[in-house]
Amino acid sequence: MAQTTENRRPIIVQKYGGSSVADVEKLGKVADRIVATKNAGNDVVVVVSAMGKTTDGLLGLARQVAAAADSTDPPRRELDMLLSTGERVSMALLSIAIQSRGIEAISFTGSQSGILTNDRHFDARIIEVRPHRIEDELARGKIVIVAGYQGVSYRREITTLGRGGSDTTAVALAAALNADACEIYSDVDGVYSADPRAVPQAKHIEELSHEALQEMAECGAKVVCAQAVEWARRSGITIFARSTFSPIGEGKETVIRKFAPSETLTARAVVGESNIVLGRVENAACLDELLKAAGQCNVTFKDLQVGERGGTFLISLLNVPDWQGAKRTLLAAVPTLQLSENLAAVSVVGDGFASTHEPPVRFLTGLKNAAAKPHLTILLLCE
Amino acid sequence: MAQTTENRRPIIVQKYGGSSVADVEKLGKVADRIVATKNAGNDVVVVVSAMGKTTDGLLGLARQVAAAADSTDPPRRELDMLLSTGERVSMALLSIAIQSRGIEAISFTGSQSGILTNDRHFDARIIEVRPHRIEDELARGKIVIVAGYQGVSYRREITTLGRGGSDTTAVALAAALNADACEIYSDVDGVYSADPRAVPQAKHIEELSHEALQEMAECGAKVVCAQAVEWARRSGITIFARSTFSPIGEGKETVIRKFAPSETLTARAVVGESNIVLGRVENAACLDELLKAAGQCNVTFKDLQVGERGGTFLISLLNVPDWQGAKRTLLAAVPTLQLSENLAAVSVVGDGFASTHEPPVRFLTGLKNAAAKPHLTILLLCE
Repeated sequence: MAQTTENRRPIIVQKYGGSSVADVEKLGKVADRIVATKNAGNDVVVVVSAMGKTTDGLLGLARQVAAAADSTDPPRRELDMLLSTGERVSMALLSIAIQSRGIEAISFTGSQSGILTNDRHFDARIIEVRPHRIEDELARGKIVIVAGYQGVSYRREITTLGRGGSDTTAVALAAALNADACEIYSDVDGVYSADPRAVPQAKHIEELSHEALQEMAECGAKVVCAQAVEWARRSGITIFARSTFSPIGEGKETVIRKFAPSETLTARAVVGESNIVLGRVENAACLDELLKAAGQCNVTFKDLQVGERGGTFLISLLNVPDWQGAKRTLLAAVPTLQLSENLAAVSVVGDGFASTHEPPVRFLTGLKNAAAKPHLTILLLCE
Repeated sequence: MAQTTENRRPIIVQKYGGSSVADVEKLGKVADRIVATKNAGNDVVVVVSAMGKTTDGLLGLARQVAAAADSTDPPRRELDMLLSTGERVSMALLSIAIQSRGIEAISFTGSQSGILTNDRHFDARIIEVRPHRIEDELARGKIVIVAGYQGVSYRREITTLGRGGSDTTAVALAAALNADACEIYSDVDGVYSADPRAVPQAKHIEELSHEALQEMAECGAKVVCAQAVEWARRSGITIFARSTFSPIGEGKETVIRKFAPSETLTARAVVGESNIVLGRVENAACLDELLKAAGQCNVTFKDLQVGERGGTFLISLLNVPDWQGAKRTLLAAVPTLQLSENLAAVSVVGDGFASTHEPPVRFLTGLKNAAAKPHLTILLLCE
């Protein structure tokens, strides 16, 4: 049992993703891991996602209900009411599983955990964390289970944090509690140089800077969400990305922490993202209208590039619940807007790229050779 | 459109049970009925139960999780966290369904609706209703959808109200909002003289006093829960019990309202309840210990009768999540306690029974003839 300087017990924040708690048996294994961490002398706070594909199921149900009345756009506030129940089910069941093992535990919703957010439903940002109730229960010796992905706005409305939001809950709580570690458990044992399901020869990465993982996450890597990594970088929180399915205390991991700026030039990973829309406007004067319309339909542009002759941008459809409705809004605002749908983006991420273009150029050469295959178009976006 | 004296719009509280919102299609029909009520010039507050068998499903999952660790008793606080999600799913979906029809609506949890309860988890009692947010949204012209069966305790914990609790939510809100009507929709078109599924010749009852329905509900009738009827009686709320599946504005109903005390002697209905345990103690001195133990394991006695030679009581297992655990606690406190399990109770309910024993005696004669059949024991409990 590691003792910190204040002679308090170390605080460990653990986050378990949906596939880690997909059924009663897996939930039991997660409970065993949590109890082992507690019994090793730590205070333990657990952030849990909805079981398996629950969130997708609820979202599908909402769309079905809207579609039955010939409407396409379920209101975001109600989506938050709906989707936030998924994590509440898994948090209660996990607390029951731990208490059934004879260890005291208590579950808290995002609101009860003091996760305060802005008012942007379905994609809210955490603005403050006030974990008083969590601290009280830790002091009583209990394991605290927190519903991930959700908070409460200053208008006392339930909000959700967008895809991967449970990671952000975990890191923000780790920072607010001054935790000794933030462990993110999923079905992969850390970060790889490419998606191991698509690229069998992908290499496992043992250590990574916050900056590199944030960039990978923003380009579509799914191990830890980008907002969470950004929060960890700003707060100096070290993240341990591990697999739930490795035996306790064994298995590989990736440590994401603060590094001194790299002297060497290293390509760390290749990441991809599907469901991308490429937008083009010929006239930069339209951009004001376009950004206003995007705000109205809660669409975020990435890689926005503006020049004298107009601009390009990408939209990731991951956090857009109703793309058809959003498209209508954008085209109504700027009828000359050109949209290319059903695209995917591939990115190479590494350290030291700002000082040379050598790795990007090698990457592009590889891509161009691949582009001899049909259906692959290269769009060059240099930063 | 009926105008009340204050020249405000009439307020209608409607409650829809689980079978009324069991799937997307039924949910749409409920939305149509709500919109029609709104369009008729009323302010509408809707209390909704969990979809179909959701609550039973969640409870089963909790028991499975506990059993996987050889434990039988899921903690009641966590059960409330878990079960309260069921109504939150249906409230959000119903709000989406209404908004998809172009009518403004907003959903509120029990806590947001101002349903304040005591701290008795899994079977909480409403102690106060502060429906300020509901009143604000009604004033903005919105339909308000409320998650039934749940509230928040003075310790800021989520609580649930026990079986049938959504009825109590509806009546308590109707009283707090000074509503013009409280309509309880289920899969039956009101109250019958016996369960129509068991007794095909059961007669539909058009009007009933609060007192008679409360007694029927306490003896196992399921159309409206006993606590709700008691609340309606105390607040003078008229309840309309209707079927969700009748065409809008048509079909039978039972009106439950205040009556002048009846002069005539009327047997109104025969009701039954299964899952009854009969308890006996030979020594009245044990009763203190017994009642203390019952409090510990949250078991309520009904029809408790105490004399010099001991006492008898009934336990309905409907709101006892872990009977095996409760039984151990009771027997540990009073080892001489005799328990007869797997019983059912049959009661006759009517007006004017206090002044004569004639109807109960006729009922008993009928029962005794039936008792010639095996497995039927008669226990006489006179009030």
